[in-house]
Amino acid sequence: MKTILILGAGKSSTYLIDYLADSCIEKGRKLLLADLDLALANAKLKDKPNTQAVVLDTEAKESRKALIAQADLVISMLPAFLHPVIAKDCLELGKHFFTASYESDALREMASEIESKGLFFLNECGLDPGIDHMSAMKIIHEAKSKGEKILSFKSYCGGLLSPESEDNPWKYKFTWNPRNVVLAGQATSRFIEKGELKYVPYHQLFKRIETIKFPGLGDFDGYPNRDSLSYRKVYGLEEIPTMLRGTLRRAGFCKAWNVLVQLGLTDDSFQMQLPQGATYRQFLNAFLPWSETLSVEEKLSEIIPELDFPTFEKLQWLGFFENRKLPKTEGSPAQILQAMLEKDWELQPEDKDMIVMQHQFEIKTEKGIKKLTSSLVDLGKDCVYTAMAKTVGLPLAIAVDLFLEGKIHGKGLQLPVSSEIYTPILKELEKHGIRFIEEEWM
Amino acid sequence: MKTILILGAGKSSTYLIDYLADSCIEKGRKLLLADLDLALANAKLKDKPNTQAVVLDTEAKESRKALIAQADLVISMLPAFLHPVIAKDCLELGKHFFTASYESDALREMASEIESKGLFFLNECGLDPGIDHMSAMKIIHEAKSKGEKILSFKSYCGGLLSPESEDNPWKYKFTWNPRNVVLAGQATSRFIEKGELKYVPYHQLFKRIETIKFPGLGDFDGYPNRDSLSYRKVYGLEEIPTMLRGTLRRAGFCKAWNVLVQLGLTDDSFQMQLPQGATYRQFLNAFLPWSETLSVEEKLSEIIPELDFPTFEKLQWLGFFENRKLPKTEGSPAQILQAMLEKDWELQPEDKDMIVMQHQFEIKTEKGIKKLTSSLVDLGKDCVYTAMAKTVGLPLAIAVDLFLEGKIHGKGLQLPVSSEIYTPILKELEKHGIRFIEEEWM
Repeated sequence: MKTILILGAGKSSTYLIDYLADSCIEKGRKLLLADLDLALANAKLKDKPNTQAVVLDTEAKESRKALIAQADLVISMLPAFLHPVIAKDCLELGKHFFTASYESDALREMASEIESKGLFFLNECGLDPGIDHMSAMKIIHEAKSKGEKILSFKSYCGGLLSPESEDNPWKYKFTWNPRNVVLAGQATSRFIEKGELKYVPYHQLFKRIETIKFPGLGDFDGYPNRDSLSYRKVYGLEEIPTMLRGTLRRAGFCKAWNVLVQLGLTDDSFQMQLPQGATYRQFLNAFLPWSETLSVEEKLSEIIPELDFPTFEKLQWLGFFENRKLPKTEGSPAQILQAMLEKDWELQPEDKDMIVMQHQFEIKTEKGIKKLTSSLVDLGKDCVYTAMAKTVGLPLAIAVDLFLEGKIHGKGLQLPVSSEIYTPILKELEKHGIRFIEEEWM
Repeated sequence: MKTILILGAGKSSTYLIDYLADSCIEKGRKLLLADLDLALANAKLKDKPNTQAVVLDTEAKESRKALIAQADLVISMLPAFLHPVIAKDCLELGKHFFTASYESDALREMASEIESKGLFFLNECGLDPGIDHMSAMKIIHEAKSKGEKILSFKSYCGGLLSPESEDNPWKYKFTWNPRNVVLAGQATSRFIEKGELKYVPYHQLFKRIETIKFPGLGDFDGYPNRDSLSYRKVYGLEEIPTMLRGTLRRAGFCKAWNVLVQLGLTDDSFQMQLPQGATYRQFLNAFLPWSETLSVEEKLSEIIPELDFPTFEKLQWLGFFENRKLPKTEGSPAQILQAMLEKDWELQPEDKDMIVMQHQFEIKTEKGIKKLTSSLVDLGKDCVYTAMAKTVGLPLAIAVDLFLEGKIHGKGLQLPVSSEIYTPILKELEKHGIRFIEEEWM
């Protein structure tokens, strides 16, 4: 009997847990679900047979290793900084290791040892990274097999709200880690366009947007996300003239978010010294020049000349012009902003989220340059069974299932970019409604 | 016979060395000058009696400590990151320690031990920090002694060119560490204005300027420098409503420098991947959007709507629009920019530099609110006897002399903010032409 160990029973693990727990009996497996919060782990397992909740204290090395020693395969849904710690344990104890997170340098340093011990470590097998790689590689491999050449590949993804839940001017609520949303983009983004390397610093990022359209859903802002250049090698597209990976927000979001970036409200590098009882208005004013005569609103318009009404409305809706007390006055600007937003952008029980992803290809074929767009839209059911949890958890769950069934013969440190891995995963995802719609034109 | 050890014989040590070397015989002292470059140290000492050049390898702990053991007092003119290392040695060996650099947290951690060993460690005794503290404290103490209240204190300083050497559109050349100039301001600046704490992020810094006037010299841009808030305590002005420390550039410099900041050319956080043989124009273009039809110049005007002719001219003068090869193509944008600027902004042998400093006070007196401006202008003689070397080195040299003469009874970790220290130093500086001009009006 094979034992699967899932570390972390949080929001994004819901579908992962269900998928693997439901097949335990049929496939003769045992599932251990470990979390700091034992009650949460128990609730998620719903007394399904062959499953067991256990307490996880990541700091307690001995008990952590004793837990990992019981498993054949470990799935880490913990915060990303813990992955190398768990990976190291798995390497020592000879266990396979799966995550939906970015492959880190720390993992890459273990690559040869993973390989030599005959283990399989699969990262980036969630949504983004994950489904994006798999669905893109399918198109790239198909084109290459026909002798076609990829001229341009732009890929965008966003975790947003289902249109029916877009009930604020930002059309945004937190469906994902709020801190990551507040700090998003705080490193110079890099991509290549028509053979020219392009670098976009944080304070330009939310101005350098493209409009991305989804049939029936309207317009989105797409901004360049991190280092797109490094993916040229992963995708076997070393010579591609144009490649960009981007993040999606609803149209208009970036222009308003950029105001916060420009003023310095997303700065996480120092501790503010706000007076106790400071208000939203004072928080904003701390980033505006002093003036004898101008109001906060007037100073803002001076500093941000492109401030239009839809942008002003978004800031107003967050309460920035009010003398309301801040929920938090100590910390970095980003921490204080996050505390504000966690109130305003909290997902309500009736809210539904939405995942949107779009690949845009330009492919040189025998007949001319073909444009191909492949789009995915997935809507959440409620605030627990979210599209985010589904699209992050299912690919990982399916990968684990296929590996234990012997249908993936993985070895070493891998990403889901080979046909052997992505073909059966994409097929199974389709059965769960995660399906790309392709459009092609010349 | 007391022995003084100066570590570092570089550019900014010239006046310091001369001042202390010239009085060795008269005052019965010995001067050791240590540098990695023995020939340089010998050249600076000019065979003056009672002086000796020695080789310094800061990495070689034993020889470094043997050298320090020979001295009674150590002056570190080394790069700032080395000060704590030398300070630690001095603490162990029971030697007094002087620098013109900012007092660091590492030094503060040694404070009680310095005190208990009866040693004197004086930092921030150069120009800025240094002369700024001393000249300001004189005014602050005078006002306080009359029962007056300081309402506002803004202090600006700049290391620039003497007007006759302002022969490029930037009116700037490197008279100081080029890397520090390129990275200047890359942390959120903080100050207080009319009781409101103000935070200015890097990408706003060069827009938030004030015009500072020096009689007979014309206009300068002043931008807020680092953390002005922490100096409230140092100056005994905890309750002051307005306090700002700023850096001066020639009028128009900041607007043009801001273009480089906005585009990301001063970014030091990642390595660029420029093609070999890349040109100035390609370097600039890497930070501009791709366009089928627009030129680099046109794209720049789109991204920077406020680009005016004087700003364009400055960028053009640096060669940004030319197909000239870059002197360096590997490194961060800031490193590549620095390599460019080191060619264009190199101080020529005939060039003279200039130090400008201005304190602006608003003081509540019995008769009403008094405005007081205290300004210092010092011009260099040539590219060796610079105003920078003079204003950095002389205060430090004088402090050391006074201490060895027993005229300063310092003990512990100090800044030159007490009357016992600054009064005799300012008096001696006047003899060397470093003199503030005060203007007062109601």
